[in-house]
Amino acid sequence: MAPVKNGRYLYLAIPDGTPVHPLTHPANTNAAPIRTEFPEPGKTMVYDDSQTIDLDQDGATPLEHGTFLVKVLVLSVDPYLRGKMRDPKIESYTPAFVVGEPLYNYGIGVVLLSENAAFKPGDHLYGVFMFQQYVVESDPGAFRVIENREGLPWSVYLGVCGMPGETAMYGWKEHAHPNKGETAFVTAGAGTHIEHSIPHISYVLGFADRAASRASGPVGSTVIQLAKADGLKVIASAGSDDKVAWLSSIGADVAFNYKTVDTRAVLEREGPIDIYWDNVGGETLEAAIEYAARHARFTECGMISQYNTAQPYHIKNLKSIVGKELSLSGFIVTSLRAKYEAEFRATFPRRVAEGEIRYREERVHGLGNAGRAIVDVQRGRNFGKSVVVVADE
Amino acid sequence: MAPVKNGRYLYLAIPDGTPVHPLTHPANTNAAPIRTEFPEPGKTMVYDDSQTIDLDQDGATPLEHGTFLVKVLVLSVDPYLRGKMRDPKIESYTPAFVVGEPLYNYGIGVVLLSENAAFKPGDHLYGVFMFQQYVVESDPGAFRVIENREGLPWSVYLGVCGMPGETAMYGWKEHAHPNKGETAFVTAGAGTHIEHSIPHISYVLGFADRAASRASGPVGSTVIQLAKADGLKVIASAGSDDKVAWLSSIGADVAFNYKTVDTRAVLEREGPIDIYWDNVGGETLEAAIEYAARHARFTECGMISQYNTAQPYHIKNLKSIVGKELSLSGFIVTSLRAKYEAEFRATFPRRVAEGEIRYREERVHGLGNAGRAIVDVQRGRNFGKSVVVVADE
Repeated sequence: MAPVKNGRYLYLAIPDGTPVHPLTHPANTNAAPIRTEFPEPGKTMVYDDSQTIDLDQDGATPLEHGTFLVKVLVLSVDPYLRGKMRDPKIESYTPAFVVGEPLYNYGIGVVLLSENAAFKPGDHLYGVFMFQQYVVESDPGAFRVIENREGLPWSVYLGVCGMPGETAMYGWKEHAHPNKGETAFVTAGAGTHIEHSIPHISYVLGFADRAASRASGPVGSTVIQLAKADGLKVIASAGSDDKVAWLSSIGADVAFNYKTVDTRAVLEREGPIDIYWDNVGGETLEAAIEYAARHARFTECGMISQYNTAQPYHIKNLKSIVGKELSLSGFIVTSLRAKYEAEFRATFPRRVAEGEIRYREERVHGLGNAGRAIVDVQRGRNFGKSVVVVADE
Repeated sequence: MAPVKNGRYLYLAIPDGTPVHPLTHPANTNAAPIRTEFPEPGKTMVYDDSQTIDLDQDGATPLEHGTFLVKVLVLSVDPYLRGKMRDPKIESYTPAFVVGEPLYNYGIGVVLLSENAAFKPGDHLYGVFMFQQYVVESDPGAFRVIENREGLPWSVYLGVCGMPGETAMYGWKEHAHPNKGETAFVTAGAGTHIEHSIPHISYVLGFADRAASRASGPVGSTVIQLAKADGLKVIASAGSDDKVAWLSSIGADVAFNYKTVDTRAVLEREGPIDIYWDNVGGETLEAAIEYAARHARFTECGMISQYNTAQPYHIKNLKSIVGKELSLSGFIVTSLRAKYEAEFRATFPRRVAEGEIRYREERVHGLGNAGRAIVDVQRGRNFGKSVVVVADE
């Protein structure tokens, strides 16, 4: 069989030549001010189809023992990718992308050939993939086979049935402690923290873009539906009127556009709130404290408004944590995985397949359009989980 | 029997004529700036012995049905009393003292005569008493009989076996989640919040004085001993060298004078901390966040540094709540009483009697010296739980 093109989406340069959205470690309170220039397809990143690959094991590129050839089907596009487009000399807790190499992120691929006993052709793998049509991998521990008995689109395993869905379910189960009839305020959700373990260092990938991280994202919209299933009144915010309409359609009792409506006014009218799902921090967290009921639970999934500024917002009512007996619980999805993953995998695909939990996706077709998808997410133009569909199967 | 003098300690005037330490509700973030003038014995409050009382039921002041006559033995002196010495027109969630009337606070008294079936002569009652040698009461629900099988000094039931001890134990059991070998940092303890329920309003008495509220107080020193009993390394701070020596003597592994030693330097050297017992808030809370270990638990007992300022400290590293997966749990002792009170009453007096839990008291003898005790507490001069011994029995 003749070699075929193996398209790649390459990282070429740091946007604007300055570090943007550095993935500052939470302990690093002295991060330097940073500019927020956007990456540019064709300039700071580019699609390249100059390479080829022989997909036939008897051909020119036989697989070495232990390796397996994967055809990439879908790739996740997340705000945090922007933080990897920085000067690698800038201290951070996640590696910078390497200039001249492909981008990479979580994705789903199908095994075409395998010289590794862990996987067989036809297996669908979840893991971190290069932005590349075909990859040869060798570490079976870095991937997991997805059964998908429900026949969901593979991309769903990057969203509501993947890490964002896990984030919603794990945080809700561990920290929200819902009681029927209570009121929840869900501000955020597209982003959360993903943590990777590398030898001796754990680091956090802070999602970069506030606009993309309101309740209309996969985390927030899933939280809304979990809250409604638990019999709560849900207040939810999003950054556009069509997103607000989506939040209402999935059950939010009160949905508002935080860009045009004052959050405090909404909370004053619709609160007090018993549960706050925070992915924003800053002024919104302050408002949530102000309109929190006694014994309210704050699930601290993220504080995205505070990541990209040298001068964090001054929250002035923290003393109410004592007086109102609030609990604030920070969490990272990976820490709760051992506790809830089995339940998640056993229930979420079914609940999604049955329409009990709904989701939205922004599907971009073709690896050549990955750059556009990345920019859209940075600018908050996506509506739902952003994925690049590299191939249909 | 002839009538005897019934001395009283009267509240005469608002110190300096301006509200000081108003007991601001936690939700009230717009408290006006306030001056902190000190009350002055003989001027803003005074001892008066012009009244008499007939202690013989067959004499001139027979008890009405349902009432009982109590001889006051010990009265608690707490920082929060200062907040009640304010213009009653100033909005607050606890009543101001009434000019011309006695002060009042928690205390212990012994029943001399009773026309109420709830109590009999010789019963020792815990509750809120006027600063007065003898009182006639009528609401048995406002008092509780203390058995004191261990024969402890009655004053102990205002300290380590009373609300401060309850605060330490309840908060520790509910929120600290200690694991042997971990490190705890205990900053504060003399003060905490006491909550009273009045019809339709619950209010908080914020302790007023930071100096009196470090680990050398009854809450903090009890927390230290609970932490040591659980096998933890304990870092503790106090505001004088003799208090630091006391903290070491009750088991603190690292004790330091926060007025002369930099808290951050201590935490950097001795941390990271897994548990933070906070009664201070502000800059110390920020330091605790900075030197917190992953998954650290913060028991938010108070944020006294933030109560008396119009410009709360700007904590700049709150985003670490997410990244470090911290939990901050605010609490008020009364909310946890139903859950832990039985265990507290069954165990604390015994543990104190056996010397397993140690305490310090600052005993002032004679109701006439109550004013001096109040000022000392405001100035942080007391060392241990401050009590006025009104009578020996």
